[in-house]
Amino acid sequence: MADSGSLQVLVEGLRRLPGVGAKSASRMAFHLLQHDRAGAQALARALTQAVDHVRHCALCHTFTEDEICSTCADPRRDASKLCVVETPADQSAVERTAAFKGRYFVLMGRLSPLDGIGPRDIGMHELIERACDGVVQEVILATNFTAEGEATAHAIASALKSRGLAVTRLARGVPAGSELEYVDLSTIAHALVDRR
Amino acid sequence: MADSGSLQVLVEGLRRLPGVGAKSASRMAFHLLQHDRAGAQALARALTQAVDHVRHCALCHTFTEDEICSTCADPRRDASKLCVVETPADQSAVERTAAFKGRYFVLMGRLSPLDGIGPRDIGMHELIERACDGVVQEVILATNFTAEGEATAHAIASALKSRGLAVTRLARGVPAGSELEYVDLSTIAHALVDRR
Repeated sequence: MADSGSLQVLVEGLRRLPGVGAKSASRMAFHLLQHDRAGAQALARALTQAVDHVRHCALCHTFTEDEICSTCADPRRDASKLCVVETPADQSAVERTAAFKGRYFVLMGRLSPLDGIGPRDIGMHELIERACDGVVQEVILATNFTAEGEATAHAIASALKSRGLAVTRLARGVPAGSELEYVDLSTIAHALVDRR
Repeated sequence: MADSGSLQVLVEGLRRLPGVGAKSASRMAFHLLQHDRAGAQALARALTQAVDHVRHCALCHTFTEDEICSTCADPRRDASKLCVVETPADQSAVERTAAFKGRYFVLMGRLSPLDGIGPRDIGMHELIERACDGVVQEVILATNFTAEGEATAHAIASALKSRGLAVTRLARGVPAGSELEYVDLSTIAHALVDRR
């Protein structure tokens, strides 16, 4: 598109974003340069700032700008409960429920041998260390209910149970507000088994 | 997501991209910070470079880093034919056909009164000036075949025809490789009227 090297480089840069192909990247570049140059400059600054300042919390591995994130540093959180999630977005979803007042461990990914993501990449060692600190009484596995999330939960559960820790998993069941007729059978089967 | 101001600002910055909502922006930010910090830095540099160096060709209004773009500066292009397109991406599509050896005028948009985009925003005045330079013999309207693109073509055609210029429009008809059974009726009707 047009004869500009900078433009070509910008389109290539935008293509590195997940879910953005050649056409979307062109459209984004066109939009930024034609209608929102201030937005392009703001985005450039935001990228540099984030790369320079965002790092991982030493305790829970989530993104933070400090040594310890605010959740880990908050003395009002119940340190006896540790919730394991895959990403900061998942952590944020659990937080928004306001139903959990414990602490978190964010894997920043999930086990995925096919992509070369092993226990080391999700901080398995640090998680075990943290869970075995003597304060944590219960580890709640809140990884996704996908094949990889389940496998990750299983691997963590095995490692922690062998060390005598109480490990629980988020309940599987019928989503709030749904009609049984439209719920998939595997979910109903799980809800039947786990009835209470 | 997480307690980082820089991260929040980055998510806001990514949301300014067209077609990117809150969830996509979070996913992009997570991907960049967790898996591709080099990509984030490259994108930041590309954005700054593009904003600083990309401007509009003085003749055809497309994106370029020089006063005049390479297409306008190429003496081998036929100056008697001027193809009017909406965006650099459209220009690139026409170029890839290798079926046009004339010059271009890129509107960098389309008439859209509802969005407040009028003749001034698409450079109507400069287009008329360029078309009436005495060298241009034929203006080929290659705006999109959408409601706004058709309206834009109509407005340009009226303005140019009243000045005695030959104005043509890309042919409407059955797309190459298609079976009549699956072509929409309006397209077949146009192809019938324009049969040759």
